[in-house]
Amino acid sequence: MTPSGRGAADLSDIRALTFDVFGTVVDWRTSITREAQAFGEKLGVTRDWAAFADDWRGLYQPAMQAIRSGERPFATLDVLHRENLDKLLDNYKLDNVSEAVRDDLTRAWHRLAPWPDCVAGLVRLKKRFILATLSNGNVALMVNLARHAGLPWDAILGAEIAQNYKPQPVAYGRTAQLLGLAPGQCMMVAAHNSDLAVARQLGFRTAYVNRPTEHGPGQKTDLCAEESWDVVTNSMVELAQIMNT
Amino acid sequence: MTPSGRGAADLSDIRALTFDVFGTVVDWRTSITREAQAFGEKLGVTRDWAAFADDWRGLYQPAMQAIRSGERPFATLDVLHRENLDKLLDNYKLDNVSEAVRDDLTRAWHRLAPWPDCVAGLVRLKKRFILATLSNGNVALMVNLARHAGLPWDAILGAEIAQNYKPQPVAYGRTAQLLGLAPGQCMMVAAHNSDLAVARQLGFRTAYVNRPTEHGPGQKTDLCAEESWDVVTNSMVELAQIMNT
Repeated sequence: MTPSGRGAADLSDIRALTFDVFGTVVDWRTSITREAQAFGEKLGVTRDWAAFADDWRGLYQPAMQAIRSGERPFATLDVLHRENLDKLLDNYKLDNVSEAVRDDLTRAWHRLAPWPDCVAGLVRLKKRFILATLSNGNVALMVNLARHAGLPWDAILGAEIAQNYKPQPVAYGRTAQLLGLAPGQCMMVAAHNSDLAVARQLGFRTAYVNRPTEHGPGQKTDLCAEESWDVVTNSMVELAQIMNT
Repeated sequence: MTPSGRGAADLSDIRALTFDVFGTVVDWRTSITREAQAFGEKLGVTRDWAAFADDWRGLYQPAMQAIRSGERPFATLDVLHRENLDKLLDNYKLDNVSEAVRDDLTRAWHRLAPWPDCVAGLVRLKKRFILATLSNGNVALMVNLARHAGLPWDAILGAEIAQNYKPQPVAYGRTAQLLGLAPGQCMMVAAHNSDLAVARQLGFRTAYVNRPTEHGPGQKTDLCAEESWDVVTNSMVELAQIMNT
């Protein structure tokens, strides 16, 4: 991997940056681990809360898959997170938890902390580019998260607005269309090679932001750029530098 | 009319303010008149450009009506503005205008100036409330306008997202739903009594902002609050005071 500064491609057509959020902009694992630990302390129980966070996140892709395949009508990520929490609490033998506490823990996903470089980088990038979320998170989740973390989005788009989850092409295509832009005027920003691969196939420009600890110290995937993305970088501040903002 | 401070109703449930934009937040008439005048100067022609702005705006409701009635599939306000401009240029005997100039003049709607009280008021209101557009303007128009005018929206919602124009109930209902809120947790903010009447019927709280010169010095409609709206005010700064922000 070339860790930074690979931005030689002509990026002058780009008008908007569209962002993956979980993992790319916010450090969900640290925040969810901390909130789950606080939940455990109130309940007076001990578990491996980092594993709990990983397991909760692990139920994310299969839950969306039923919707992508058409097996199930669109349901928001808030709904899926809550259903997955119910399964998880069963698995962890924590069934004596009220509805209100389950709802509150589900809303931990609205209170995630950004990676330390994000707010400063996004504020700089916003001077020159439209910044839109292109996340699987629903609108309410993204709005609350932005207010909590200070993320200066111009628009909250992505899965719920398109009524289907990434990597379904409609999630990307509808986002560009609503911004009034051609895909080539949008650059997808993500810490996940697979997300960028789909975006590139649809005509988006691509920026890989390396987040090698998204999944904790033992992360095995997305440790480096696996294709020659238009930009490869380690932080949003570095991305702002590369994009001359 | 009681011009200000009528805010005695219990407003403590409100989590989001949803805004009408044209007329309520931005002074479209002054901006469009100025841009049309500049267009005329380049073209070397003289017309009554304030009347031109009024006539352009006058074609707005009938164009949306074909979509509300189901006669025509959803088309964005950018598309309708451009079609209406073509008609208008015909009416004004200004047919020797290039496509590029027509496109640029249509985008004058992306460059409207806010009323002087808006940015300061919205910045204060944002500290406590989610601020979302509930406008007939499309997403790209609203995003560009916000960037131009410095409007600190948390989310761009409304007509294009709901795929129908106000006052169709779906435009309001879908906005509240995407914010994850009940209608009663949202307050519609508008300078138009008819907009507030529909919002109230759907369960929204209501704030009337008096804009007695939206349509110029001879304005005849919406000169005062015509129902006992939850809040009646003369500016966004006053609204921020009433809402204790």
